[in-house]
Amino acid sequence: MTASSHNAPSSGQMPTGAPLEEALAEWSDILGAERVQRLSAAEPRYTATTLPNAPLPSAALKPGTSEEVVEIVKVAARHGVPLYPISRGRNWGYGDARPAMEGQVLVDLAGMNRILDYDETLASVTIEPGVSQGQLSDFLREQGDRLWMDCTGAGPQASVVGNVLERGFGHSLYGNRVQQIACLEAVLADGRVLRTGFGHYREAQSHKVFADGLGPALQGLFAQSNFGIVTRLTLWLMPRPERLQVALLSAEDPDDLPAIVELLRGLRLGKTLRSVVHIGNDLRVLSGMTGRAHLQAPWESGLTAEARTALRARYGMGAWTLSAGLYGTAQEVKAARSVVGRTLRGPGRRLLYLDRKRLGLAKRALAGLKWTGLGAGLREKLEAAEAVIDLHSGKPSARFLKGAYWRHRHPPAGDLPAEADPALDGCGIMWLAPVLPMTGVATRQILDLIEPLFARFGFDPLVTFSTVNERALAAVLTVAFDREDAAERDRARDCHDALLDAVLSAGFPPYRVGLRGMGRLEAGSETFWPIVRSLKLALDPGGIIAPGRYDGRPEGEK
Amino acid sequence: MTASSHNAPSSGQMPTGAPLEEALAEWSDILGAERVQRLSAAEPRYTATTLPNAPLPSAALKPGTSEEVVEIVKVAARHGVPLYPISRGRNWGYGDARPAMEGQVLVDLAGMNRILDYDETLASVTIEPGVSQGQLSDFLREQGDRLWMDCTGAGPQASVVGNVLERGFGHSLYGNRVQQIACLEAVLADGRVLRTGFGHYREAQSHKVFADGLGPALQGLFAQSNFGIVTRLTLWLMPRPERLQVALLSAEDPDDLPAIVELLRGLRLGKTLRSVVHIGNDLRVLSGMTGRAHLQAPWESGLTAEARTALRARYGMGAWTLSAGLYGTAQEVKAARSVVGRTLRGPGRRLLYLDRKRLGLAKRALAGLKWTGLGAGLREKLEAAEAVIDLHSGKPSARFLKGAYWRHRHPPAGDLPAEADPALDGCGIMWLAPVLPMTGVATRQILDLIEPLFARFGFDPLVTFSTVNERALAAVLTVAFDREDAAERDRARDCHDALLDAVLSAGFPPYRVGLRGMGRLEAGSETFWPIVRSLKLALDPGGIIAPGRYDGRPEGEK
Repeated sequence: MTASSHNAPSSGQMPTGAPLEEALAEWSDILGAERVQRLSAAEPRYTATTLPNAPLPSAALKPGTSEEVVEIVKVAARHGVPLYPISRGRNWGYGDARPAMEGQVLVDLAGMNRILDYDETLASVTIEPGVSQGQLSDFLREQGDRLWMDCTGAGPQASVVGNVLERGFGHSLYGNRVQQIACLEAVLADGRVLRTGFGHYREAQSHKVFADGLGPALQGLFAQSNFGIVTRLTLWLMPRPERLQVALLSAEDPDDLPAIVELLRGLRLGKTLRSVVHIGNDLRVLSGMTGRAHLQAPWESGLTAEARTALRARYGMGAWTLSAGLYGTAQEVKAARSVVGRTLRGPGRRLLYLDRKRLGLAKRALAGLKWTGLGAGLREKLEAAEAVIDLHSGKPSARFLKGAYWRHRHPPAGDLPAEADPALDGCGIMWLAPVLPMTGVATRQILDLIEPLFARFGFDPLVTFSTVNERALAAVLTVAFDREDAAERDRARDCHDALLDAVLSAGFPPYRVGLRGMGRLEAGSETFWPIVRSLKLALDPGGIIAPGRYDGRPEGEK
Repeated sequence: MTASSHNAPSSGQMPTGAPLEEALAEWSDILGAERVQRLSAAEPRYTATTLPNAPLPSAALKPGTSEEVVEIVKVAARHGVPLYPISRGRNWGYGDARPAMEGQVLVDLAGMNRILDYDETLASVTIEPGVSQGQLSDFLREQGDRLWMDCTGAGPQASVVGNVLERGFGHSLYGNRVQQIACLEAVLADGRVLRTGFGHYREAQSHKVFADGLGPALQGLFAQSNFGIVTRLTLWLMPRPERLQVALLSAEDPDDLPAIVELLRGLRLGKTLRSVVHIGNDLRVLSGMTGRAHLQAPWESGLTAEARTALRARYGMGAWTLSAGLYGTAQEVKAARSVVGRTLRGPGRRLLYLDRKRLGLAKRALAGLKWTGLGAGLREKLEAAEAVIDLHSGKPSARFLKGAYWRHRHPPAGDLPAEADPALDGCGIMWLAPVLPMTGVATRQILDLIEPLFARFGFDPLVTFSTVNERALAAVLTVAFDREDAAERDRARDCHDALLDAVLSAGFPPYRVGLRGMGRLEAGSETFWPIVRSLKLALDPGGIIAPGRYDGRPEGEK
């Protein structure tokens, strides 16, 4: 079997005319006409995108159950019509609700939003792909707030399952979310339903507590892939700790980061810090507070070093801001704080701790100051602090989406509402997330690689680094652009591509890619992607499920 | 494609005569005649087994490099001769060095024992399958003992890679060993070499720090499977903590275990206890100290409850003994100890802490007592305590293998030597390891299920429970039998089968199986195993690599 014959059956070419029409008619019979939308009548959510451009679907289907997904897949296979599953379509900055290739039929799982099982004893929950961060968080609060989810900065509307399957990471002890999957259910291209771990044993009592099961572990096949449509996920939750404190470190000197990373590695490897630590540069932090359009600075080019220094002074922030959650009993948190303080304190650095108690005291103090007028500006800071604690306790907020509006011509002045949608709002963003060893040297190397590229293309380098495990950092680079400006859209695309090529050549592949990156996965790789395609062929010989998605085929072959 | 056609090409039928002879001739050309052993001239290590019976290989090959493994596989594919890779063949109680099916040709990787990379900064090591626990532990000590491996009780001779790929677990923070794989290299049936994670990117700098890589995670396919021959593993190591203490809890009452498990779950979920906690029953602990043949008790049946009570009194041990490593800074360990003590102490329980410092003091005190004669028996206890601390610090010891000699007619009186080999020594053991939720109810259910079965077949129930993660216990049941007694061999096999059927029907599948269990994987399962076989067919259409191993085919179809 040659490499090209591997590709042939799953070329993903979209049939037009008769096959699509016939499939649409059959899907209407199954789902009812109102749950089958042609592109011409599709909701804006399916067509809006934060990217410069992206493939358009030809239709969208809205199943309500796993059984309907099975029927959808069988029709697709019969007519050779490629599908593209989305959980809730909030994959902003990577692909939104758009498919990997032109004309694929969206399977929108947003209507499958049941919380199927909640196990307080074993601290797990079983959810469908339509469950949003906000929905799960509210549900857990209603159950007494005894279990916390891990949440990301993507806001209340984003799907939990969708983000976990992209290996998104949050801020808590359970921040490496894909590691918290106990088992999942996936519908395969031939309509078979697979349950991973121990989930396929009919009488299983241990499927919620042990992910590997018996025999080869198939779970990893369903993250960042096109091997099936995941319809159910059992996820582990964190028992609410006796105490949560968030350590906030601010570093004045832009060149201090490599030294901080060296110290962090010790704290992470030694397990004093056990959660995902996030570090943002000045611009990334600023983008959460205000839009670029609100600043007194030339619009056409990136902010200068001088402008950034002035902004740091004005907003009272450092070149780098680090946040780390400390979880445990009061005594354990105290012990950790002592190690963290001893390790991280140094000249040019400020370290402080936030928790609900301190926040409550500050609020009462603020209320007492009200009549004096001295509290102005403080309220905003307290609200921001509260959102940070919320995020570390599994309570999502739209606040952290605000960075997506950085290059928007008319960014919101105040807080974003819970239902904010950067794609519908016309934001332009492309995210790129290279992984690097948690060393000062690698951190310096990444910064030296990317900062000149941002400058060359005239964009502001919005950058975060997160300790996704004990040894690795994921950098998240935001190319924020003005979507209304056609030339800037092109520049953003070119900047993204230059950044991706640079990190790939330097040996720092990203932990995930957006639709734009799907065509470049094979660059510099040996053997892996052809093997992925062999496995795909075994499970989906007709190429029905999301061809072009994480299958390593170069752009030209799609 | 029907289910039976899935099986057809990989039926695993062993060709005899010409194909095998031709393949052996070609392998001799590649490896030299001295590294190709026919069964008639094979080392006893390849034929000795701890099981009642097991398939015999027809030959054994001893490659020295990955490249030789590639050549071996190509010859096997050409002649349709099935291979069975073993790392070091010390899979005692599960299969030793024996293949899954009669006549398969062993690929013994023991000669591939290089430590290819040692990264002190990122705390990782890259090793070949022939590297033993003892070799890696010694190597790390020579490097300054700054990084600790996780080790199991299987002794210095066992392969690290082999055990990790069976998802064996140890005692430390890194006890869930399969989670500590950064990337691996595997030779596939067609001779292609796959590297997982970021390892397939030629310039990768992050392959040692992030396991999932980009796109589907294939790593899970190579544990407990027959998808390839793993020739290299990069494993994460634990930085030596400032402090290690081992908490030892002894519980008098045999019925106290469910309550202890309930408390443990809180400690594990709350991350006060972060390592694998082991709990052994009286017989399991006793089997580490003495053989059944040394006891004054009828040989033909299991020990009675009265006999067990008397033995507990005589050896000063409880019905259950728990050991848990506490790792961290002195302050962190102190904080953890305070929570552990507060939680676990209770009537009928004794809690004490071991560490190197206390051990040193005790040793000096003992030396001072020498002339009085009062120290008799104390030295043994101190040595046992030292071995427990060693085990928690990644220093393996043959001491914990002693349980394999429980039903041996002539068990060793003193310590086992480092090179002890229960298979060569004629021990009879079958291990069975069901996974259960970490609840008192499930623990009670397992005990109620298995104890009567051990009694029915006349064997002593040697039982441990280990917290393999925050929510699951793996029970390890030992059916120890007298291998010299043909009738007892049969009874042991029947006892094993009855136990396996019981735990499967009750919904507690094991986390791994031995050769005897391979034929029962599909009982009660839906969809999973046929999908495993589809994937196998995609990677190994000729069924060259270990057919019958973790592929779910029932006994009769092999």
